Parts: sequence; structure tokens; C-alpha cells
Amino acid sequence: MTSDRLQRQLAFIVEIDKAKSILRNSLVIEEGRRENDAEHAWHLAVMARLLAEYARDEIDIDRVIEMLLVHDLVEIDAGDTFIYDTAARERQAEKERAAADRIFGLLPPDQAAALREPWEEFEARQTPEAKFAFALDRLQPLLLNFHTQGHAWRKHGVRQAQVIAVNSSIADGAPELWEYARGLIDEAVRRGYLSE
Amino acid sequence: MTSDRLQRQLAFIVEIDKAKSILRNSLVIEEGRRENDAEHAWHLAVMARLLAEYARDEIDIDRVIEMLLVHDLVEIDAGDTFIYDTAARERQAEKERAAADRIFGLLPPDQAAALREPWEEFEARQTPEAKFAFALDRLQPLLLNFHTQGHAWRKHGVRQAQVIAVNSSIADGAPELWEYARGLIDEAVRRGYLSE
Repeated sequence: MTSDRLQRQLAFIVEIDKAKSILRNSLVIEEGRRENDAEHAWHLAVMARLLAEYARDEIDIDRVIEMLLVHDLVEIDAGDTFIYDTAARERQAEKERAAADRIFGLLPPDQAAALREPWEEFEARQTPEAKFAFALDRLQPLLLNFHTQGHAWRKHGVRQAQVIAVNSSIADGAPELWEYARGLIDEAVRRGYLSE
Repeated sequence: MTSDRLQRQLAFIVEIDKAKSILRNSLVIEEGRRENDAEHAWHLAVMARLLAEYARDEIDIDRVIEMLLVHDLVEIDAGDTFIYDTAARERQAEKERAAADRIFGLLPPDQAAALREPWEEFEARQTPEAKFAFALDRLQPLLLNFHTQGHAWRKHGVRQAQVIAVNSSIADGAPELWEYARGLIDEAVRRGYLSE
């Protein structure tokens, strides 16, 4: 006999398999196909531990990883929005809240709260952990874009000034990583991956 | 100026993007395409936190997640082997050790050791954390196989007794999850997803 609690936990685990089908705008380097939310979250979680030493403030790295693992789950219902599509991103907040209600709500109440909290914390970007997690969430697509010859930038006609504006908040979480990213953006312009 | 240390960290981060192209035998439920190592590791990491209460022994869940995030990185060089292909799995160990040398070796030495340790711990399956991580690594493909009508089992002609033999070690890490899995296997036979 499977308990109601375990049944709810497993229903959630099966449901979030759908994150593997939510496509982002960045390409996977090797294959040139669009990256999905599950792959993205994994990549960020590994990055977090390796780059923790660059966090601006002292951080609890396990909390950062907790946030990163669930930060995009709401996109199962709300979909991904391109970071340079400002109008779409404003409409997104309400859809994501409804998605959080439904998706986290599949879990037993204590765990629904335990997973929703780090998601809310990430979204609010107030704690050192959230700021660092957010910095990685910006840096990773920059890396993928650079290593796929600026595919997503060129496809959407994004320019250098927009890339700087959208990503400069990396500095709030990890100043040295922003310094690195700033150099990468300039190099992307030099190589013709990104227009000035 | 990017430090040599950061350069090595970023080289590793770019290298492990390849885990997104290492295909497993389980199918993603929604799309029916083969799951890759990055998606699999993410799914396990989320499962770990939710199912920690079923661990046989007291565990440090952050250590479990650390292991799960890196446990398949060696497959970037060594490839994935199907869990029911016993001969291939024996040849695999040496290839994986060489892969660990190369891949973790991209990192600064302190971090190479810090990532290799949880991988070695996972492989050795001696600690409570490794046993629980291993149990999840077995349970997750069972779930995917069940929810894709036994695709991988049917494709490779796997039978119920093999599934039980390969997965019974779930009990070493999480007895209640093995009890659940045992029921799922029987249900798979009843539904014709798996032959007796």
C-alpha cells in the first residue's frame, strides 16, 4: 500500500518531467539544439558550487542550489520568456504565480511550502543567495550564446547595449563574474556574434 | 584580466555542457525522446530532497545532491551503459576512471578533488548518502519506463526477474521506495509493459 503522501510526492516527480520539454532560447553547444529548463537548472547547480567563491556576500551554497533546482518549474505552465522580451516578461509574473499554485500544490502541504519558499526567494532577489543564484542564471546563457557564435542574439537582433543592460545585475551577486562577462560581451562584438 | 583559476573553472563549465548530449535508455515522458544525463541528474537532485524522509539511515541531503549532480559526468567520455547490459558495465569501470582523470582534471586541483570525491563516494556505495543516491538513480528510470509503457524494457527484451534483480538494491538506500517500486514492477507486468 502506497501512502497518500508518497503518492503525492511521486505525482509531482512525474509532473516535473515536463521541465525537460520547456525550451529556452540558448542552444546546447555540442548539438546546436535549444536547451531545456531541466538541463539549464542542472548546469546552474553545478556552476553554483564551483563559482561560490565569487559571490559578493557570504552565502549558503546549498540554499543557492535548492533555489536553482526549482527556479524554473513554474515554466511548465507559464512557458519560458526570452530575457530580452521586456513586454512578455511583465505579463509573465501573474502566470507564474498561478503555475506555482498548481505545480507546488501537487505536493503534500509541508513540501509544497518547502519548495515554493526558495522559488519566492529567488524571484524576490533580496538575499545574498538569491542575488548569486540570479547572477548565475544570467551568466550561463551568456556562456552558451558566446560558444554558439551568438546564435540567440543574432536570431533576435539583440544588440550589445541590451546585453549589458540585462546582464549588469550579475554584479549584484558576483562582481568578478560580471567583470568576466563584460569582457566576453566585448569579445562577442569583436567576433561579430553580437552587433554594437 | 581573467585569472587562470576562473579560466579553468569556466573551461570545465563549458565542457560539461556535453552531458546534455549523452543519451540514456529511458524516455522523457512528454516527448518520447531519450533522456540525457543532464536532465536525469536534475530530476534526481529534486527527487532527493522530496524523498529524503525515506532514506534507510540518517543522511546529509546536501551531500546526496552534490553526488547526484556529478555522478554521470564521466559518461561525457565513457558513454552511458544500459543497466541491464552486464558485460558492458564491467568494461565500463576503467573507462570511467580515465574519464574522471580528464574531466575533473580540467578544474583547479582543489576543486578537481572536491568534485571527484562525491563521484567516488557514489560509485563505492558504502555511505548512507551513496546508498540513498543510488536508490534514486535506480528508481527514476523505473518511473520513466513505467510512464512510457515500458519502452526501454520492451525495446531491449528485459524481463521482470531482471528488473527485480537490478533494482532490488533500492532497498539498501530506501526500503519503502523499494516496496513502492516492487508494486510498480508487478503493475507493469499486469499492463503488459514488461514480460514475466
